[in-house]
Amino acid sequence: MATASWVPVPEGSGYGLGHLPYGAFRRDGESARIGVRVGDHVLDLAAVAAEGLLDEALDGAETVFAAPRLNPLLERGAGAWRAVRARLGTLLDGADRSIRSRSGLAERALVSVAEVRLELPFEVGDYVDFYSSLEHATNLGRLFRPDAEPLLPNWRHLPVCYHGRAGTVVVSGTDIVRPRGQRKPPSAPAPVFGPSARLDIELEVGFVTGRANRLGEPVPVPRAEEHIFGLVLVNDWSARDIQAWEYQPLGPFLGKSFATSISPWVVPLEALAPFRVPGPDQDPPVLDYLRRAGAANIDLELRVRLNGGEIAATNFRHMYWSMAQQLAHATANGATARAGDLFASGTVSGPGRRERGSLIELSWNGAEPIELADGSTRTFLEDGDEVTISGWCGGDGRPRIDFGEVSGRIVGSA
Amino acid sequence: MATASWVPVPEGSGYGLGHLPYGAFRRDGESARIGVRVGDHVLDLAAVAAEGLLDEALDGAETVFAAPRLNPLLERGAGAWRAVRARLGTLLDGADRSIRSRSGLAERALVSVAEVRLELPFEVGDYVDFYSSLEHATNLGRLFRPDAEPLLPNWRHLPVCYHGRAGTVVVSGTDIVRPRGQRKPPSAPAPVFGPSARLDIELEVGFVTGRANRLGEPVPVPRAEEHIFGLVLVNDWSARDIQAWEYQPLGPFLGKSFATSISPWVVPLEALAPFRVPGPDQDPPVLDYLRRAGAANIDLELRVRLNGGEIAATNFRHMYWSMAQQLAHATANGATARAGDLFASGTVSGPGRRERGSLIELSWNGAEPIELADGSTRTFLEDGDEVTISGWCGGDGRPRIDFGEVSGRIVGSA
Repeated sequence: MATASWVPVPEGSGYGLGHLPYGAFRRDGESARIGVRVGDHVLDLAAVAAEGLLDEALDGAETVFAAPRLNPLLERGAGAWRAVRARLGTLLDGADRSIRSRSGLAERALVSVAEVRLELPFEVGDYVDFYSSLEHATNLGRLFRPDAEPLLPNWRHLPVCYHGRAGTVVVSGTDIVRPRGQRKPPSAPAPVFGPSARLDIELEVGFVTGRANRLGEPVPVPRAEEHIFGLVLVNDWSARDIQAWEYQPLGPFLGKSFATSISPWVVPLEALAPFRVPGPDQDPPVLDYLRRAGAANIDLELRVRLNGGEIAATNFRHMYWSMAQQLAHATANGATARAGDLFASGTVSGPGRRERGSLIELSWNGAEPIELADGSTRTFLEDGDEVTISGWCGGDGRPRIDFGEVSGRIVGSA
Repeated sequence: MATASWVPVPEGSGYGLGHLPYGAFRRDGESARIGVRVGDHVLDLAAVAAEGLLDEALDGAETVFAAPRLNPLLERGAGAWRAVRARLGTLLDGADRSIRSRSGLAERALVSVAEVRLELPFEVGDYVDFYSSLEHATNLGRLFRPDAEPLLPNWRHLPVCYHGRAGTVVVSGTDIVRPRGQRKPPSAPAPVFGPSARLDIELEVGFVTGRANRLGEPVPVPRAEEHIFGLVLVNDWSARDIQAWEYQPLGPFLGKSFATSISPWVVPLEALAPFRVPGPDQDPPVLDYLRRAGAANIDLELRVRLNGGEIAATNFRHMYWSMAQQLAHATANGATARAGDLFASGTVSGPGRRERGSLIELSWNGAEPIELADGSTRTFLEDGDEVTISGWCGGDGRPRIDFGEVSGRIVGSA
């Protein structure tokens, strides 16, 4: 990371050679394709691969990077991901002239990030949403079951989760139409149908997997990270009133399925090696098939802004269940995890009051409205509100890895 | 349906010209492609389309039918489905010589169903599993909450459902590996990990949708059937012990996600028009957005065999919530339903004792073992057991539409 690139990387940029996140982008009048971000530029990997410059790292590179989504790269598996990443590091190094020596290639392949439209980076196969923050699960337990133990009996034994809707995962910048649905105020005799009055966010971090394990053959914890390609920020929009009425006994459905937003740049897991930290102690000890070792968590700063002003600041290092434990659990019954499957952490909350990753926690179920910079207050989201989640590792003199952001604006339902 | 085809259709066959179900098939050494079943033969639609014989019904027919799955056809929408079905009716009519007059085409395109391998008919986008049988929901309520109202308060107001795992939907004939997982016997101090000891079936019927609605724009009940391409039989394998421990508060996950089997032939909704029947009364009346009219249900006989002997017989007409209501509900919040999304009914149980579509109901949670033809008894499934679900409409002098079967054999986990 001390190496300089021939592509300009501004001082303090979170997109240096140690990062190299992948995305799907489109220029006016061109088809979507795969690129890698360096500084404030996108390197068009379809153009680079068309010159044969990625063949030594990946058979069929031209087809893989001309695809409109990352799925063909995800299918290739961890060995291929490492080889491509290493090759890109070489090609982008200031001492290398492979790209610049080809007539017109640098001009064709390097485009300002301001000039492209970023698309959904991968076609989502299945979407699993966990509930892996001890602080979040405890807060929700206190709110909904004030007279009982906040955590249900299974919570410390397994990473609780459910399947969300893969087809409504959208890329950052997509407007979010306020969902309609059934809700039943406790005092009402019957449910009513209409726009959600308790629209919320969930600050989450997700990972995407590569080539599938065989059906019937679980992925054990020690091998789980070989299946993880990279990470994105996730906003798991939630309609609390719809969810409260529908969720017994089979879990959340319409309260979640209207939209889930993800950030456009997929941060390679390999890039996060310098930021690994141990996870919190797990007590009682987990069953053997969930046992973890080493630096299971990631020191990843997370922020939430509402209409520009920060409303929450937390860190992904707090998570009780690690990504490897989540993936091992989700395949323990023999289920496959395929290329493009998205696994989100569940709301990331920390111990402090401002470290809560949802409005239902920040406003304590509406009892304690939060104040915004313009003097207005919020319990839940209003039409026109814009929410932006951002994240980064390092900085303050250390190399920095920027996750970018995931944002969305609430639009009233027609 | 009085018309005879030039393809032999045995007396009493459930695969006459009024049916024409679609599937994905493969011959030795050839790629998978789309076919339609007539009698005991499969007509290779890729071969027929390559001669231009389907062009008048569908632009780009050659590409659509040479695809290994039905998804490109699903994308085309209801107008295209009707046109293709009408054209196939013409081409297969005994008076039409379009196929037979082309040298060698009939020989190339017509293959015995015994000589092909049937594959998963469509790539599953999202998989939603409902809980729409009043009798099933009531039975489970009685078993699990003996001292309370069997139905939860929301059940008669909305079609309760959850998302299952799309990536583990498999075609009939796929072996089912007994899943491992956490379970906690009520008396045990802590959970244990191991093979499920309460492996069950769920007899269901599923539908698959076509081209997506726009995100944020629900599909209303009166237009819902325009989005439904066809139906399949579903066995939603369930590990009751894993499910019981994991499902609070976010619903079933590993207890279901190891496998869901579907039948290989997709029965066009259009073919079922003669078998439509009214659904049961809905009391209390449903909210406006769920209001239905006309013959919402389908008179579809269903059977379950365990190791060859029949253990249950019921009918899809019993369902409380209709398919159109299910789809309207699932999109009421603006969520999309895409080409290839699978929506399953939930266990189909009827009022009688032998009309129950799961072993947990048939054996009353293990308290009343069922006897098999060989004199052995079962509460839940043992390794080596083979379960076959079959279904048909009509017969007994009326035209018959055969759904074929969905079967699977339990294999011990390694």
